[in-house]
Amino acid sequence: MPLVDLDRLERNLDRMATYTGRHGLALRPHIKTHKSPRIAAEQIRRGAVGLTCATLLEAEVMMEASNDLLLAYPPVGQPKLDRLLSLPDDAELMVTLDSGTVVESLARAAGKRNREIGVLVELDLGMRRVGLPKVEDVIELAKLVRRNSPLIYRGIAFYPGHIRGGGSPALQQLDELRIRLQDDITALKRAGLEPEVVSGGSTPTAWHTHEIPGVTEVRPGTYVFNDRNTSLTGACEWTDCALTVLATVVSTAVSGQAVIDAGSKALGREPVEGQGTGFGALLDRPEVVVTRMSEEHGILDLRETDWRPSVGDQVRVVPNHVCIVVHLHEVVYGIRAERWETSWPVRARGRRSLRQSVEV
Amino acid sequence: MPLVDLDRLERNLDRMATYTGRHGLALRPHIKTHKSPRIAAEQIRRGAVGLTCATLLEAEVMMEASNDLLLAYPPVGQPKLDRLLSLPDDAELMVTLDSGTVVESLARAAGKRNREIGVLVELDLGMRRVGLPKVEDVIELAKLVRRNSPLIYRGIAFYPGHIRGGGSPALQQLDELRIRLQDDITALKRAGLEPEVVSGGSTPTAWHTHEIPGVTEVRPGTYVFNDRNTSLTGACEWTDCALTVLATVVSTAVSGQAVIDAGSKALGREPVEGQGTGFGALLDRPEVVVTRMSEEHGILDLRETDWRPSVGDQVRVVPNHVCIVVHLHEVVYGIRAERWETSWPVRARGRRSLRQSVEV
Repeated sequence: MPLVDLDRLERNLDRMATYTGRHGLALRPHIKTHKSPRIAAEQIRRGAVGLTCATLLEAEVMMEASNDLLLAYPPVGQPKLDRLLSLPDDAELMVTLDSGTVVESLARAAGKRNREIGVLVELDLGMRRVGLPKVEDVIELAKLVRRNSPLIYRGIAFYPGHIRGGGSPALQQLDELRIRLQDDITALKRAGLEPEVVSGGSTPTAWHTHEIPGVTEVRPGTYVFNDRNTSLTGACEWTDCALTVLATVVSTAVSGQAVIDAGSKALGREPVEGQGTGFGALLDRPEVVVTRMSEEHGILDLRETDWRPSVGDQVRVVPNHVCIVVHLHEVVYGIRAERWETSWPVRARGRRSLRQSVEV
Repeated sequence: MPLVDLDRLERNLDRMATYTGRHGLALRPHIKTHKSPRIAAEQIRRGAVGLTCATLLEAEVMMEASNDLLLAYPPVGQPKLDRLLSLPDDAELMVTLDSGTVVESLARAAGKRNREIGVLVELDLGMRRVGLPKVEDVIELAKLVRRNSPLIYRGIAFYPGHIRGGGSPALQQLDELRIRLQDDITALKRAGLEPEVVSGGSTPTAWHTHEIPGVTEVRPGTYVFNDRNTSLTGACEWTDCALTVLATVVSTAVSGQAVIDAGSKALGREPVEGQGTGFGALLDRPEVVVTRMSEEHGILDLRETDWRPSVGDQVRVVPNHVCIVVHLHEVVYGIRAERWETSWPVRARGRRSLRQSVEV
């Protein structure tokens, strides 16, 4: 059962709002972490300019909280295009993309509805996932966007997801990214394609964004809850981890360990980053980690602790990667000062359309 | 989008029913793999004596398909006990457990409702998860069950989940298990605790069950769909993999790879077993694997293939571990001869009660 410490959540929301406000950065949080319009509304209330989504269901659900949406995912295929263009008329839509195929199909679909769609051309600045690695290709694609009304070229996007941790390798990567981005922006300006929007920013790099000239907006997701990996890589404190999985000890029959009723179907099997092992650690005893898992069993390693739990004891696990944990649950429970206060559904989980029974 | 090849599913169901029937083994499949009463009903129709569940929601939902249920998970805590004992009166219930704490709390809860509950004492035969490693402790716990009416001692259970693959290490482990189990059954008989039920069997070991004297029933789960790991470890053929994730190529911008719209939120991040890498492989091109993932992106490694997919192409991914994939989706789509035929919801996913809004 996922519990969110509401005081910590609010502190996390405030901190990012303050940081971006102070540095004049637009905050467009990625809602993939919480998938809930209720938290999105809190982000908007604190000054976020709009929201970032990855799936069409996320966009459909998030219209409740904001009508300024970035789909940071190429909408490939007719069902996705149809769902995108069926979003309410007052939605201001932007899309990131990296191929001519998507430009042309999106322009056709938007043209039929006579609907303007903003486009950010995606750059690969080292993540090697989506995005064009070469600026010449970025320029070509931006030109293609300009030729394809009713699409509107708005600028560029990148995701620095390969930069993790605060150590010197990360700082060097950040330095390379800064140089590369400046070169690319200069080349775009020269080609008459000055980007109005330069959208970047993951949670781990978010606090460095003011050191990267040219970036106009950031799209962090994880910062609302944080997690063990964010803490282990130095992008938050352990006490900033707002979401834990409440679990119960169900067996102590095998020596040296205790078994809890949270396994890979509750915690995900996300690797640990930085100096750590296992799939999660206890909030109150970070030295006790979930060392092995089955689908419904988590094995707490007791070899490094004097603590000897009994069957029936409850524990709270800080997961390695919180976005996956939220995706694995239907409901999140909000607590304050250890007392239950509220709960909310994970509304934007899954792929099915709100309107039709179409899954894309 | 998870697609199930219905011909393969039916063949898998038939094969296990035939095997267990031929060897006089009771088949009590674990429904954690499909979480759907519709497939459970097909298992019952083919002769399964009942069903195995891990969560209370699974048990609640599966009452639709069978009233003979084994909760192969210790019911720890009052909410779980309440839900267990609130199952319809015509349910014949068995529970596995490994502690006196659970025996006593279960007996109290069952006593209040004057409801008989069968008990299988869980042995650890090498998995090191739940279960008592020492037969003396098994005997003590079985005696405690006998003293705690309305609980009824029915026998023992074990899960050979540590035995994977068909090679000689696995055969040696199976040999050790056989010897250990026979010793334990002998000791139980001597103590006047002859087990009426000896419940074992995972999918990888299922086909060897007839070689393990004493086992009366098996609880395989994965065999309905199979997956890449089951195939790589030799417990099924590649063509027995019934469930694939349909995905679309969304980017080819970075050379040497293609990006599909199925990442860790669709495929899970389950490790590969046997001779393999990555998180899944294409059904039609098993040499093409999902080599990296983000939450909504899967990176297909194209370095070992001449195949050059385009944005918009569709692929079908055989996941490493199918139970997690089903748990990640709301609906499963059934196809036959490549054509859509039906779909069904993953009804027993999650933890919330069908009756109350209690999550345990």
